[in-house]
Amino acid sequence: MTPDVPRKLVAEALGTALLVATVVGSGIMADALSPDDAVALIGNTLATGAILVVLITVLGPVSGAHFNPAVTLAFLVRGGIDPKLAGAYIAVQIAGGIVGALLAHAMFDLDLVQVATQVRAGPPQWLAEVVATFGLLMAILGGLRARPDAVPALVGLYISAGYWFTASTSFANPAVAIARSLTDTFAGIRPVDLPGFVVAQCAGSLIAVVLVGWLLADRPRANAV
Amino acid sequence: MTPDVPRKLVAEALGTALLVATVVGSGIMADALSPDDAVALIGNTLATGAILVVLITVLGPVSGAHFNPAVTLAFLVRGGIDPKLAGAYIAVQIAGGIVGALLAHAMFDLDLVQVATQVRAGPPQWLAEVVATFGLLMAILGGLRARPDAVPALVGLYISAGYWFTASTSFANPAVAIARSLTDTFAGIRPVDLPGFVVAQCAGSLIAVVLVGWLLADRPRANAV
Amino acid sequence: MTPDVPRKLVAEALGTALLVATVVGSGIMADALSPDDAVALIGNTLATGAILVVLITVLGPVSGAHFNPAVTLAFLVRGGIDPKLAGAYIAVQIAGGIVGALLAHAMFDLDLVQVATQVRAGPPQWLAEVVATFGLLMAILGGLRARPDAVPALVGLYISAGYWFTASTSFANPAVAIARSLTDTFAGIRPVDLPGFVVAQCAGSLIAVVLVGWLLADRPRANAV
Amino acid sequence: MTPDVPRKLVAEALGTALLVATVVGSGIMADALSPDDAVALIGNTLATGAILVVLITVLGPVSGAHFNPAVTLAFLVRGGIDPKLAGAYIAVQIAGGIVGALLAHAMFDLDLVQVATQVRAGPPQWLAEVVATFGLLMAILGGLRARPDAVPALVGLYISAGYWFTASTSFANPAVAIARSLTDTFAGIRPVDLPGFVVAQCAGSLIAVVLVGWLLADRPRANAV
Repeated sequence: MTPDVPRKLVAEALGTALLVATVVGSGIMADALSPDDAVALIGNTLATGAILVVLITVLGPVSGAHFNPAVTLAFLVRGGIDPKLAGAYIAVQIAGGIVGALLAHAMFDLDLVQVATQVRAGPPQWLAEVVATFGLLMAILGGLRARPDAVPALVGLYISAGYWFTASTSFANPAVAIARSLTDTFAGIRPVDLPGFVVAQCAGSLIAVVLVGWLLADRPRANAV
Repeated sequence: MTPDVPRKLVAEALGTALLVATVVGSGIMADALSPDDAVALIGNTLATGAILVVLITVLGPVSGAHFNPAVTLAFLVRGGIDPKLAGAYIAVQIAGGIVGALLAHAMFDLDLVQVATQVRAGPPQWLAEVVATFGLLMAILGGLRARPDAVPALVGLYISAGYWFTASTSFANPAVAIARSLTDTFAGIRPVDLPGFVVAQCAGSLIAVVLVGWLLADRPRANAV
Repeated sequence: MTPDVPRKLVAEALGTALLVATVVGSGIMADALSPDDAVALIGNTLATGAILVVLITVLGPVSGAHFNPAVTLAFLVRGGIDPKLAGAYIAVQIAGGIVGALLAHAMFDLDLVQVATQVRAGPPQWLAEVVATFGLLMAILGGLRARPDAVPALVGLYISAGYWFTASTSFANPAVAIARSLTDTFAGIRPVDLPGFVVAQCAGSLIAVVLVGWLLADRPRANAV
Repeated sequence: MTPDVPRKLVAEALGTALLVATVVGSGIMADALSPDDAVALIGNTLATGAILVVLITVLGPVSGAHFNPAVTLAFLVRGGIDPKLAGAYIAVQIAGGIVGALLAHAMFDLDLVQVATQVRAGPPQWLAEVVATFGLLMAILGGLRARPDAVPALVGLYISAGYWFTASTSFANPAVAIARSLTDTFAGIRPVDLPGFVVAQCAGSLIAVVLVGWLLADRPRANAV
């Protein structure tokens, strides 16, 4: 009884929307409450890590809970998802992410449509996104092999760590990056900086597919989607 | 060997009382200790998320651990609880919540009976409560289907995220909202703002019943209560 | 292959020593690093909650991982531990706790023997300790019945919440209270305030035995010790 | 289908590199964002605890996920790893750790090669490292016996506590200590202070092998590596 395609697409859109609403909304809340940016990042981290566990646990059985084109790309390369479905996933992830940013703005009574001005560019930032996305895929692919029921927690924990140890605060997700270019708040990124981030994220994902695949002596397997 | 009704009602009252005592008490503690409202909210978040996991794990086998009229409403609509029992649940949740607020005041040596003056109103706040309660029910209904033993953690994590990503800090619970109208501390809400919050919470709950029910291809099932 | 008595007593002493070293040591560290007492309490909370999960998981199979005379008292009243063994447990818990305080002082290069000057007294504080210890025993007794493998996490989470929602920061443990009377740091308590705390803790424990026992329709069972 | 030696060594190097990148990188991030050292340590703690759970879960099936010469030493003494393999493990752990420090510097656009100036010496610090490493091995050896699937969480939680309750912030790992001598940031340690730390760490590990072995009535067993 595989969930049908409309349910999968709604799950991907809904999950990405709530993920972005959490990333953006918790950044707005934290930034408004604290003069200390590290305190704000702690709030941002708690919220993001927690919602990831919830969303992946609940929506995983429906769509696989990618919420992230870099994850869908990895499954596509490994032969775990049909190319047409992968394209649809990526489209609804991007659309859902944008809705999530608007939703956060609406809840916090801010202008719905904004354009980010936060600069995030340069080789160190791009390296950080390569590392961030590599690690995320390592957590997912390694977790699926070692302990599938732990994957939601592993992703939540990995991103919680990534918010602190990568200089870019681990976007690690092209759909989330696009959505965050539409908010001029704590979590923003200038639209002009998107291409560098997206390329770095795809690179990190592909490196993980190769290296982690070898490390785990892991043959690509079809997954549930 | 289903627990009998008195045990169920005591479990709902006790759980809601301890939940409110934690929400209000940790707010008092955090606010007294810190000049930084985000630091205070971190303390409030840790305490609330943690106690939810404990209370739901321990009292779940007795009463289902609703502690929340919006949750009881969702189960009622889905046919998972007898209407009379649902009414009794809601009554003892409200009574228990009020006792919890008094208990927090007594422990912190404050006036037992207070009336909140904190303004929480307007469409953005109401939208936030719709989102907050929708997400809570998604976590519960989706969790019950995907991984029932994870529901206590999912609720604790969801509310931890909600404290930050919703502009209202995720009351998401009419009984807790009523109790919080009786404390003029960090966690308070003006009595006059209650109706807006309660309507929004019920709306969020019902939206979740419909949308999540469809998403999970989920037929209503009788639950244990 | 029940562990023998010497192993049980060493486990109780070692566990209580490391618990107290963590409570006291993390208080010293946090207080030295931060001007914000709520930030310090967050550090104190993270450390205490985390070490409880570790100690109870690892030493639970040896001694039951009480580390707390109020817990041993509850098992004694329920007929789950031999009175002589219970007496020995309480003695080594107190001794281990004192060693833990000395160890924290030694690591932080402070005077080994100190006497606390922090005032913790009065009915609101005693009420807080009744509530704190009641909740701790509810987490343990309810957890053992609902999900025994979750008890370490439940205790860690409960105490994390208790640090914030009870006005006394949830000592909830006579052995830890005695040890904390021997440190004049963040976690201290005046020796003269000990009797009030210990009486309140025993009261909270006994209330939980009665009320939670009834609530869970729970007959006393022999446990592993 | 035991993973072959190259995979094991790559896993140890990769895991230690990402661990050190997290320890150092999150220290840089936190220190840059906050004037409050306890807030910085909270960020450092969240990141380190979280990445440990991820790395041990994912790479544990490949190499055992030591990432730490003091852990490899304990398994060697217990007869759980071949001496030649143990030597290779320690070599790649040290090399991986150094790469991790360089990676953190590259991501944060700092000088790649640095020499730490942070003083960490004297008997209280050494005692702290003995305690820190003893506790780490107690968590691992006790966890493997009591609940092997919980070991990743136990290690993450233990180190989270250790960052606060030991005066040295729980290096507890000679390879990480060496790598941290090459960063003049929040997490640094002067090279001249390394020998004291490494000796203390090995002592803590060996004490745990003896005491915890006895406590758990535990005979050495061959493990998976």
